[in-house]
Amino acid sequence: MSKEICLGKILSPVVRNITQDKINLYAEASGDFNPIHVDESFAARTALGGTVAHGMLVLSYISEIMSRAFGRDWSSGGKLSMRFKAPARPGDEVTVTGKVDSIEERDGVSYVTCSLSCCNQKGETVVAGEATVKMISER
Amino acid sequence: MSKEICLGKILSPVVRNITQDKINLYAEASGDFNPIHVDESFAARTALGGTVAHGMLVLSYISEIMSRAFGRDWSSGGKLSMRFKAPARPGDEVTVTGKVDSIEERDGVSYVTCSLSCCNQKGETVVAGEATVKMISER
Repeated sequence: MSKEICLGKILSPVVRNITQDKINLYAEASGDFNPIHVDESFAARTALGGTVAHGMLVLSYISEIMSRAFGRDWSSGGKLSMRFKAPARPGDEVTVTGKVDSIEERDGVSYVTCSLSCCNQKGETVVAGEATVKMISER
Repeated sequence: MSKEICLGKILSPVVRNITQDKINLYAEASGDFNPIHVDESFAARTALGGTVAHGMLVLSYISEIMSRAFGRDWSSGGKLSMRFKAPARPGDEVTVTGKVDSIEERDGVSYVTCSLSCCNQKGETVVAGEATVKMISER
């Protein structure tokens, strides 16, 4: 966990490759076997033109950047507000970036809000939004 | 996809069993091998007393209830605002419930907002929040 969280701090980016294998594993973990995710020949005939990752697989990378920066404070009680903007596809390399946008004190507790976005290798935004962490751990 | 979305409509619940196998698959899909999720002997010695599911695995069930109710309108551009309240553990049975809380018209487009929660078999809330869908598909 980063020891210092200050306003404007840039979180260490998370870069991940989307593969059909990861999408298939995610389908098994979640039970979501929608053919748009796992059936390449079906998906190729749809408007999307091929399989796409589950939105929540992409959100796992958003969670990862927060987890790396805030450790248990994130996993034990974070708040996430995200908008899905474009699909992520097998072969895509996505990069999650984040920045500390506000630090508020309420009743002696600090709440840190970060703006976050996940873009693909073409610079298209896949997911964007913000996350808030209640800072509990001693630093 | 449900043909009729009206104010107060109760979405069909999603019930899922959390298992260590699903957590392990999720770890492989996401690349998040934090020992609190996958190392049972390590996790048993922490304050949590055992492994817990990745928050995003639980969110996948939230996504599923929305996907069943709204189909492509959800997967193509939903907005999710969620708060993590308690961990889900192997052996838990979690139930996601949802209700249509508001339907707003803006510029001739309908935006449907649902309140959502995921509770475990003891009635404890694991995740709660809301999701908004922009209604695009013809009905």
